Amino acid sequence: MNILVTGGVGFIGSHLVDRLLLLGHNVTVYDAMIHGFVTSWRDAAVAKYPDRFKMIRGDMGAGERLMEALYDQDLVYHLAANADVRGGTKFPGRDLEQNLLATNRLLEHMRQAKVARIAFASTSAVYGNQTVFPTSEDAPFPVQTSLYGASKVAAEGLISAYCYGFGMWATIYRFAPVLGERYAHGHVWDFYQKLKTDPHHIMVLGNGKQAKSYVYVADVIDALVLEVIQQPRMAPPVLIYNVGTDEVCTVDQSLDWICEEMGVQPERQYTGGEGGWPGDPPRIELHCGRLRNLGWKPTVSIRDAVIRTVRSFE
Amino acid sequence: MNILVTGGVGFIGSHLVDRLLLLGHNVTVYDAMIHGFVTSWRDAAVAKYPDRFKMIRGDMGAGERLMEALYDQDLVYHLAANADVRGGTKFPGRDLEQNLLATNRLLEHMRQAKVARIAFASTSAVYGNQTVFPTSEDAPFPVQTSLYGASKVAAEGLISAYCYGFGMWATIYRFAPVLGERYAHGHVWDFYQKLKTDPHHIMVLGNGKQAKSYVYVADVIDALVLEVIQQPRMAPPVLIYNVGTDEVCTVDQSLDWICEEMGVQPERQYTGGEGGWPGDPPRIELHCGRLRNLGWKPTVSIRDAVIRTVRSFE
Repeated sequence: MNILVTGGVGFIGSHLVDRLLLLGHNVTVYDAMIHGFVTSWRDAAVAKYPDRFKMIRGDMGAGERLMEALYDQDLVYHLAANADVRGGTKFPGRDLEQNLLATNRLLEHMRQAKVARIAFASTSAVYGNQTVFPTSEDAPFPVQTSLYGASKVAAEGLISAYCYGFGMWATIYRFAPVLGERYAHGHVWDFYQKLKTDPHHIMVLGNGKQAKSYVYVADVIDALVLEVIQQPRMAPPVLIYNVGTDEVCTVDQSLDWICEEMGVQPERQYTGGEGGWPGDPPRIELHCGRLRNLGWKPTVSIRDAVIRTVRSFE
Repeated sequence: MNILVTGGVGFIGSHLVDRLLLLGHNVTVYDAMIHGFVTSWRDAAVAKYPDRFKMIRGDMGAGERLMEALYDQDLVYHLAANADVRGGTKFPGRDLEQNLLATNRLLEHMRQAKVARIAFASTSAVYGNQTVFPTSEDAPFPVQTSLYGASKVAAEGLISAYCYGFGMWATIYRFAPVLGERYAHGHVWDFYQKLKTDPHHIMVLGNGKQAKSYVYVADVIDALVLEVIQQPRMAPPVLIYNVGTDEVCTVDQSLDWICEEMGVQPERQYTGGEGGWPGDPPRIELHCGRLRNLGWKPTVSIRDAVIRTVRSFE
């Protein structure tokens, strides 16, 4: 297949591109290249797959370049997004711009370019302060508590409406927080950086009891290719899948493993409160039965995912 | 209270303003005045309440005028929106612009003006193609099927995130389709216009079996003032209420009543399909227990609402 990956140089995107190339697809990456593992990773991919790999630098506002990128594509993986969940209240407007309006521009260009299929990286943050655990895809209609979650649920809605309105079809993935190699934000990264500077003290955002079903990036990629690549379909127009492990770990547990791996024993202090920042859901525990029914299952435990992530920094 | 009503010259907005003035509040209307019952209605209100009623013409992009309108307000009713539900696929971008981005601009200006309380006119369309009836506010997380519904669910999410992120608080109303005096779009209006031109034939969008719990505009206004005005609160940050009758009527039934009232007996033809247009939910039947627990109940049946609407045209 001819596949376009937006945000293809990012953490999850670059792993997806590696897998798609390995599976024999023609892959075009469309990315603003503000963040991500550009140089070494790109050079390796270009060297290995000179005929099947292409990179186009641009953002969603660059209409002509985006149209060029969309030419003759069978499928778009839309992973380009603002992933700084915490910065929402500091930069109001950013989630809306980069997650929703960018998605809107992509959909409009897809419609004009007659590219009908999209796979979208959404987030478990759309469940807001959920009360039903484990949370399934048809959980009670949530109230949004973060601009990040709000922008993603808005993008999901827009994608779905385009599918029903214009004969497109979508697979939407709601990821639990993802860990693994090339990861460069979030609590593991923060703790690692802080402990490198001061191994004796650590400040934990929240009360340390936030519990989430973190998932390893290779397992996420398994999910991303499973249904979209291997089971093409045209109906129903929209399918939604949770992607997470069956376990949860707390921030405190994760910090235990990070400290063990780094050989440090810092004194812990807590900022307090149920969430680490405004809109941080205290619990993310996903029910992933839909995806498991297709044969998917996570292969790496949260503990191993944390440890692999820490090792990748070193 | 000092109250700002956006979209205050529209169908629902103008009824709300009348009620708020009657209740003794100071009311400012902020409206682009593209649609709505401007002249005669405004003149009457100005004459009756010269000190408590003010109108400012502007859209959500007019920052300075909006800041002026927000000055010293206790509460904003945000009713300004694109209400042409059907035109979504013909004008993609319009729902996003007028329903979501306009709401975003309002929220940003409210934050800057330190106006912390908003009541928002959302819609039962956010439930998409729901399968649970009657549908309560915490119904299964729906898939959006129309750009209108997607833009409103996105606006709801944004409002909620602002409440959790910036200490604001919101009441969100999900209206069933509203009928009554000053109504000027939707199926009753369409049928009336068509039958005035040709009383012998009528084309019905869909199969005529679409069933919805239409609600009369005065009952909607009861709902809008009940909790917001009479029971002020600061927590929880977001409350959501369905607003509809307990009955449903089909498009065919409604057409029966319209024909009876107009004294015509047209031959009916149907465009076919479960919905009248792409994204039209075949059934809207709301569970309104939350609002009823506050003492609200609809006082006008759907039949009477349809007949009053037709009479208002004459």
